[in-house]
Amino acid sequence: MVPRLVSRWPLGLLRGCPDWRLARAPGAPGEHSPRPRGPVKAGGAGAPACRGCSSTSRAPEVTPTRLRYAVQRLPFSEVSAEDLAAFERIVPGRVITDPLELEASNVDWLKMVRGCSQVLLRPRTTDEVSHILRHCYERNLAVTPQGGNTGMVGGSVPVFDEIILSTALMNQVLSFHSVSGILECQAGCILEELSQYVEARDFIMPLDLGAKGSCHIGGNVATNAGGLRFLRYGSLRGTVLGLEVVLADGTVLNCLTSLRKDNTGYDLKQLFIGSEGTLGVITAVSILCPPRPKAVNVAFLGCPGFTEVLQTFTTCKAMVGEILSAFEFMDAKCMELVRQHLGLASPVQDSAFYVLVETSGSSAGHDTEKLGHFLEYVLSSGLVSDGTVATDQRKIQTLWALRERITEALSHDGYVYKYDLSLPVERLYDLVTDVRVRLGPSAKNVVGYGHLGDGNLHLNVTAEAFSASLLGALEPYVYAWTAEQRGSVSAEHGLGFKKRDVLGYSKAPAAVQLMQQLKLLLDPRGILNPYKTLPSQA
Amino acid sequence: MVPRLVSRWPLGLLRGCPDWRLARAPGAPGEHSPRPRGPVKAGGAGAPACRGCSSTSRAPEVTPTRLRYAVQRLPFSEVSAEDLAAFERIVPGRVITDPLELEASNVDWLKMVRGCSQVLLRPRTTDEVSHILRHCYERNLAVTPQGGNTGMVGGSVPVFDEIILSTALMNQVLSFHSVSGILECQAGCILEELSQYVEARDFIMPLDLGAKGSCHIGGNVATNAGGLRFLRYGSLRGTVLGLEVVLADGTVLNCLTSLRKDNTGYDLKQLFIGSEGTLGVITAVSILCPPRPKAVNVAFLGCPGFTEVLQTFTTCKAMVGEILSAFEFMDAKCMELVRQHLGLASPVQDSAFYVLVETSGSSAGHDTEKLGHFLEYVLSSGLVSDGTVATDQRKIQTLWALRERITEALSHDGYVYKYDLSLPVERLYDLVTDVRVRLGPSAKNVVGYGHLGDGNLHLNVTAEAFSASLLGALEPYVYAWTAEQRGSVSAEHGLGFKKRDVLGYSKAPAAVQLMQQLKLLLDPRGILNPYKTLPSQA
Repeated sequence: MVPRLVSRWPLGLLRGCPDWRLARAPGAPGEHSPRPRGPVKAGGAGAPACRGCSSTSRAPEVTPTRLRYAVQRLPFSEVSAEDLAAFERIVPGRVITDPLELEASNVDWLKMVRGCSQVLLRPRTTDEVSHILRHCYERNLAVTPQGGNTGMVGGSVPVFDEIILSTALMNQVLSFHSVSGILECQAGCILEELSQYVEARDFIMPLDLGAKGSCHIGGNVATNAGGLRFLRYGSLRGTVLGLEVVLADGTVLNCLTSLRKDNTGYDLKQLFIGSEGTLGVITAVSILCPPRPKAVNVAFLGCPGFTEVLQTFTTCKAMVGEILSAFEFMDAKCMELVRQHLGLASPVQDSAFYVLVETSGSSAGHDTEKLGHFLEYVLSSGLVSDGTVATDQRKIQTLWALRERITEALSHDGYVYKYDLSLPVERLYDLVTDVRVRLGPSAKNVVGYGHLGDGNLHLNVTAEAFSASLLGALEPYVYAWTAEQRGSVSAEHGLGFKKRDVLGYSKAPAAVQLMQQLKLLLDPRGILNPYKTLPSQA
Repeated sequence: MVPRLVSRWPLGLLRGCPDWRLARAPGAPGEHSPRPRGPVKAGGAGAPACRGCSSTSRAPEVTPTRLRYAVQRLPFSEVSAEDLAAFERIVPGRVITDPLELEASNVDWLKMVRGCSQVLLRPRTTDEVSHILRHCYERNLAVTPQGGNTGMVGGSVPVFDEIILSTALMNQVLSFHSVSGILECQAGCILEELSQYVEARDFIMPLDLGAKGSCHIGGNVATNAGGLRFLRYGSLRGTVLGLEVVLADGTVLNCLTSLRKDNTGYDLKQLFIGSEGTLGVITAVSILCPPRPKAVNVAFLGCPGFTEVLQTFTTCKAMVGEILSAFEFMDAKCMELVRQHLGLASPVQDSAFYVLVETSGSSAGHDTEKLGHFLEYVLSSGLVSDGTVATDQRKIQTLWALRERITEALSHDGYVYKYDLSLPVERLYDLVTDVRVRLGPSAKNVVGYGHLGDGNLHLNVTAEAFSASLLGALEPYVYAWTAEQRGSVSAEHGLGFKKRDVLGYSKAPAAVQLMQQLKLLLDPRGILNPYKTLPSQA
């Protein structure tokens, strides 16, 4: 996807956004769409709507995607009065055509992409989703499934006039097993509400995201969300036990089992985890919830070099073991920026790198003791030059803030070029160093931070303003560098609309071809979330 | 699949097998094919071979599958002299046609199914596998991929004259990352050897099986093996990070990444995990190894009823928490049989049910204390009537033996009907009770045991000899009962050849249809492991 640079909207990122920390749970960090609950209001109220993509006067700051990017509308049908009447029969009173109401669902939360859908449907049941898709399939109408619309890559909003199929009203818990911790719920349940539901029963959700106040569990599964508990509880590919999915032609695929073990045939649900709504619409989820930890500790440490960061990680895994729940890192530049822009003070002496270690366990006494032994060792061996530990909630939040507010600090530093990469941990920071050397004074700041425990680097570059030459120095360099290390050009955010054309940096041609064959098999008319995930050029 | 009962071989199971405990690691229990390393010798040496399925005189106790079951050979080509010459060029000196050498690979370890392949190929590299499959695809020759040949459902041996593609010589470790614990290796590496390799580096494999001394990691992944560490480290769908697979037409699909997070496109490797070699041949695996636990404890407990077993499990998860690594149960009948047939004594007073709890953690002191608090609570509350704890290796083995030797004890009790089911834990034992009532005196013993922590029941019924009427009382009753509970008719063993026709009890018609479409997409000529996994009738 080649953006038309002339019309590219300067990525001020979070500068103009509401304070997203309001939506965050204490101690829950991350780079995940930090939008507080409720619709995004793009542009001023009362301005003319984007009907038929003909007008951008209402929200000039969010250029329609079709104008900003070199993308052609595929030959889908257009929604007719008869279609609207049919939808009204399927979901009476839940066919939204009011341009004001549609606005929030046409624009992504980063305000980078904007569709011009004229219809949003709000089914409550799987049966309604099935009838809607059957109609769309027969009529060759394109559909964009939408959960909380908190994605980072423009995957959850239309590109042109695709019908928006919202899961917002599919928000019922179907069952919860208090012995096994297995939750079954509809796809539109909000993650935070599910968390509260299972926490009241002494379990936790196996995933946690910055966007928890808005994001839907169906969207989490459709994007294979990583998030904050990944290091401890692993991928959704292991914790999601079953899915109910409606296929492009309206067929309901019921794989909603609640079994930890099931080796009967191919595991079809895996096709839909992480496929970003391009192969089917997830309508219900069965997920395994771990028991709620009784104790949480956080340590914040300074390390003299990245080698010491890696050795601290290895030591931590060995000594803290089963209670380790987060191992995050940030470089000195990050600390400088959170100090400069947000007035946050480092709790430890100045260091080249900082590490945040979190433990979650079933015994406060044991956990404190384990963490204490680990800290004693890393301090005495010189791996760590200074450190502090928190057990009370307020101090834990203060320490987490240093890590989780980096994104916010960067947004105050200027225009931000953002990359979310998976790399072998050993080489993780080399990319930051290489980019710093490559860009020299043309960049304002080059910083590296992220989920070290998961091999997930957030490389961010700031400049006074957007610069095509700086972008040219970064891309495809960053993607090629990542490919050379057999890394991933999208660790946890997916490809959506904005990254679909860099897929080839992480996947071999034979793999991309098989993905295209799968798309053709499951959605032969290509009506499900078109222009997403797969490259525009075959 | 309807077996021809007249020619059915009495399933003496382990009676005639070598002592499989020789192949087991201490403390490693399970119902997984317990064959010691080395080929199975079916029948006496020197007898005429099964060339062309025309002769069964050499090993009369293993009737050829084509004679025992109502199965028709599909119209694949037959191996010609030109084919053999082509194979000799691809894998010189590694084309096995000696009937004696082929015998062990034609028969499964349970001695229930027997193919009559006349060619076994032993590639060393992915490139060789690719060339072999390209040739077979062009020539329409059927292929059965084979790892350690330790499967339980006849999935790893030919049904007719399929070419056997063995991974035995693909046994190289490709890399190991000491920071992340990520291992990359060829598919033919033996699980036990990988365990030793990573344990020397202070990690463990995330799975462990009774068959570890023979089974190949590629076969483990192809069958999505569950095993003994499932409760703690979860499914291979989460721990397998990457795969290299050769498709039916010889295309090499390289998805061998070593990244914990990678959201670039569809996760193709999931297609091959658990597909039993019917969609592609796994040639290399990347897998995440957890740190090696420093302390292991085992408790053996007696419970007055199954309600108390469930409450003990809930309590255990809450109090023992993150160090819980196994929660197994067995009923009083199981204890009676291990006592009667193997002379093992119960370490606790007679109870209706017995539970084995294992902990694995990073601190011996902490773990013992946690387990102690748990035991104090369950004993004082009456959930448990008696219990004993082991920390030394010898006593740990003695306690595990009570659970893991049940299979062996059953084989001494007579003909055994075996079912491996996933059920909601709350209803798990009801099936045993129902079957006991249903069969009345026509069964000798009806017992229930298994991995309670995973919801995995092993229901076993013994009788003096095979009886068609008893089989008729059990099937489809057991499968229908399981289906009514939304359970799985194959929890961890897969479907292979023997169970492929019960798939419909656990999967909806739309799901089975999609599986068949996937098979057609990936293997349009159906040459890969035909007659396996998918039902014989569409």
